[in-house]
Amino acid sequence: MDSKQFKEAATAAIDEIVNYYDTIEDRRVVSNVEPGYLRKILPAGPPEEGESWADIQKDIETKIMPGLTHWQSPNFMAWFPASSSYPGMLGELYSAAFTAPAFNWICSPAVTELETVVLDWLAKLLNLPECYLSSTHGGGVIQGSASEAIVTVMVAARDKYLRETTSHLSGLELEDAIAHKRSKLVALGSEMAHSSTQKAAQIAGVRFRSIPVLAENNFALTGKDLEEVLLQCKAQGLEPFYLTATLGTTATCAVDDFGSIASIMSKHAPPNVPGEIWVHVDAAYAGAALVCPEYQHLTASFEHFHSFDMNMHKWLLTNFDASCLYVRKRKDLVDALSITASYLRNDFSESGLVTDYRDWQIPLGRRFRSLKIWFVLRTYGVKGLQEHIRKHIKLGEVFAGLIKTRGDLFKIATGPSFALTVLTIVPKVAGTVEQNAITKAVYELVNKRGEIFLTSGVVGGVYAIRVVSANPLAHEENVRKAFEILVETTEEVRDGKASVRVLNGPLVNGKGEGVGEVAVVSGS
Amino acid sequence: MDSKQFKEAATAAIDEIVNYYDTIEDRRVVSNVEPGYLRKILPAGPPEEGESWADIQKDIETKIMPGLTHWQSPNFMAWFPASSSYPGMLGELYSAAFTAPAFNWICSPAVTELETVVLDWLAKLLNLPECYLSSTHGGGVIQGSASEAIVTVMVAARDKYLRETTSHLSGLELEDAIAHKRSKLVALGSEMAHSSTQKAAQIAGVRFRSIPVLAENNFALTGKDLEEVLLQCKAQGLEPFYLTATLGTTATCAVDDFGSIASIMSKHAPPNVPGEIWVHVDAAYAGAALVCPEYQHLTASFEHFHSFDMNMHKWLLTNFDASCLYVRKRKDLVDALSITASYLRNDFSESGLVTDYRDWQIPLGRRFRSLKIWFVLRTYGVKGLQEHIRKHIKLGEVFAGLIKTRGDLFKIATGPSFALTVLTIVPKVAGTVEQNAITKAVYELVNKRGEIFLTSGVVGGVYAIRVVSANPLAHEENVRKAFEILVETTEEVRDGKASVRVLNGPLVNGKGEGVGEVAVVSGS
Repeated sequence: MDSKQFKEAATAAIDEIVNYYDTIEDRRVVSNVEPGYLRKILPAGPPEEGESWADIQKDIETKIMPGLTHWQSPNFMAWFPASSSYPGMLGELYSAAFTAPAFNWICSPAVTELETVVLDWLAKLLNLPECYLSSTHGGGVIQGSASEAIVTVMVAARDKYLRETTSHLSGLELEDAIAHKRSKLVALGSEMAHSSTQKAAQIAGVRFRSIPVLAENNFALTGKDLEEVLLQCKAQGLEPFYLTATLGTTATCAVDDFGSIASIMSKHAPPNVPGEIWVHVDAAYAGAALVCPEYQHLTASFEHFHSFDMNMHKWLLTNFDASCLYVRKRKDLVDALSITASYLRNDFSESGLVTDYRDWQIPLGRRFRSLKIWFVLRTYGVKGLQEHIRKHIKLGEVFAGLIKTRGDLFKIATGPSFALTVLTIVPKVAGTVEQNAITKAVYELVNKRGEIFLTSGVVGGVYAIRVVSANPLAHEENVRKAFEILVETTEEVRDGKASVRVLNGPLVNGKGEGVGEVAVVSGS
Repeated sequence: MDSKQFKEAATAAIDEIVNYYDTIEDRRVVSNVEPGYLRKILPAGPPEEGESWADIQKDIETKIMPGLTHWQSPNFMAWFPASSSYPGMLGELYSAAFTAPAFNWICSPAVTELETVVLDWLAKLLNLPECYLSSTHGGGVIQGSASEAIVTVMVAARDKYLRETTSHLSGLELEDAIAHKRSKLVALGSEMAHSSTQKAAQIAGVRFRSIPVLAENNFALTGKDLEEVLLQCKAQGLEPFYLTATLGTTATCAVDDFGSIASIMSKHAPPNVPGEIWVHVDAAYAGAALVCPEYQHLTASFEHFHSFDMNMHKWLLTNFDASCLYVRKRKDLVDALSITASYLRNDFSESGLVTDYRDWQIPLGRRFRSLKIWFVLRTYGVKGLQEHIRKHIKLGEVFAGLIKTRGDLFKIATGPSFALTVLTIVPKVAGTVEQNAITKAVYELVNKRGEIFLTSGVVGGVYAIRVVSANPLAHEENVRKAFEILVETTEEVRDGKASVRVLNGPLVNGKGEGVGEVAVVSGS
């Protein structure tokens, strides 16, 4: 493909993409292909001779589109959103053009330096304490996902804990102590923390313990919940070294009680003393709301914690992936992840003049992801981003308000919180079993029909439906439509009333396989 | 930015990108900005009000370009190439448009299914044994980098080893055995293996031991080298559980002796017996050559190994990132990385009908990277890819041939191997110290001038210059020019002859900081 062919191909691609976004609402939001659909319609191997772009492009509409679930559709209200924006796409385009596995500064100084600058911009925008800025001992780094960020900081926390608690030993005694401690290390997260903490513990080779939380605290982790588990662990000879605290849990968008968590930590594992417990704040989705001053009080305790992560690719208009991880002490990451022997590291490197981000992450190479963040922050400006968040907060309130008008059909379990409302269906005959059954039945029928796409979850032992509409194309009419669909489906399933709604496109296989099995898990 | 503005912006971006590629050879290949250059010319935070694309775009040429090292320039002969192609860019563009953290099948079935299909295509193209295809118990998955792939398989290998060697125990005895074994586990790699194996061992929390290799074996790892270290480890009570074998080492593109490695493994740690040692083949760069039948004999032993990885983003025209990892038993990955309890997994999932790639990788979310691989394989076709590889193999031979004509100035240390030639400068006065000094001086002056960009390394205790010209825009004139630059610089530095070459653009700061410090490390 030469320059001229590329210009033609790219122009055709841009037209197709614009048309896709302009008409996305007309497509069935969740794919209903059968597993294995694609292999059946593709050749068994690549062609011997190259093909033209025209031949390739037409397969996108005919072969790929049917297998897409349209995350950018305003009818997508499942999981959390994965924001897209045109400036974000331009960032990806330039990143691809400037392609390089930019693993150190000289690989392309702009890749490193723009990342440092825009992550400092974002830290200020989110009201993070100064200790997370690159001008101090901290700084930000773009990771692929919130789950990757958690593995990264957990490994740093593990090694820091082992190093600091055995620094008085040497030789065989040191080796034994480390082997023993390794087997006793425990990573903690509330039962509402994202499952990526448990997965990170498997990868880091440590135990994981889930901390129960209470409905009366709105499913937020409190210092009291934490203290109980810390004492249990100690009584059992286990050594907690890490905690994920969450700003916006997956199931209900609860905000853990950071103040009381910080107090308990300073009592049981005081900061800057060997044996301190690393606290990571997972704000993957709801962290975006910190661009609005009305949420910025939530960062008050963060100076007592060790790291913070939020995904611009969830609710902040930046195409996946752009997970923004901040640490208070960048040295902790470098100590764990650099393979440059410590005696070779120097003040020049430590001064932050030249950052080698390969030592802040698991992979070596890295894409030029800061470009898209730069484009997005500049295109929208601070005010544009605040409006974007407030619009969705408002939509969540509108939706929850509508739900409350039909107390005969629905009960709100939690929210609206950061545009997420969690609800259950009121059964004809009272009882948890009946309620769970009817809620599940309504949820499954809604998704099978595919006019809107929702996810479900279990909250406090109760089966519930999550509705979150925070993607860029969502408007009030979309949440009103979602409400109407829930009303009609509930009346149909529970009361036997026929639905009059005209379905949005045919059900190709009528089965909707897989959809009913969707577990609540936040994409990160 | 609305649809109309995006069309205009994207058209302007496409024009700029085409112009960039058409004139890339005229730019200084390696950036010579000073550390911290970008912060000085950017504002301290994002703008309050949004900016227009015209204002943003002009900063790309003025602020970003000076800080880029141009990996696509035909004058870039450093590390390994990071291939770019127009179809690759189109793939990234569509991937951004369809943005989603597609962590499971229903998130977007096409994302999962196209990945399975094109990785099977690629496996056949590379002549991998059938056991690596998804139709058997194996399969491929796209990772971000070869280093991420190594962490992934090492964690799987670690957990498999611990599980299989302790399966006869239970309770406290099991716990003690695992704690003890964990402290004795050793990951192995030859001293020429990429440093990512050492880093992966740090992340997985296991020991790492480097296996010495011999110049007489062309720095390839042999079964004999391996056996020696295996016996040493056992004598010391250590438990080797993992080995990285390399097809195309970073320093010299050596190919480890897979046949003798497989023999030694079957002797000391036979496959499919508890305690077997996981062998991963790191073919990050040179694996691309397997598209040519003349290299396909190299895969003969792979059926005895456990995993294989090559980066399409290095030498196969696919924009970073596209690291293609294959495993012989996908269950090994899922066992280590899934957080779905084993009793919840079922035949349906194991059958390969629905693959949840989140369980084959460290992060949860994933981009639609198979699109660009699909576009590249179809645009070039099998023959186009073979021509691409053979062209660079030929360029390497031309370059090495030229070097041999000046035995008075140069000595070839290794190669040409997969388009990489490693050479030293002949000193005026014989001696290793003198040779190292003159080689380093020539290398540093070449890079400081920035007409071409090379990397250096230490091979068998000798300082050497690596020249690899395998990027898509490289032609014979480029390797001839590189040869002339090396001749002139050597004559200037060693013999005091004035260089007559007109430099390709001014030296902005005249210092070229950082470049002299570049270590040989392959971007992956």
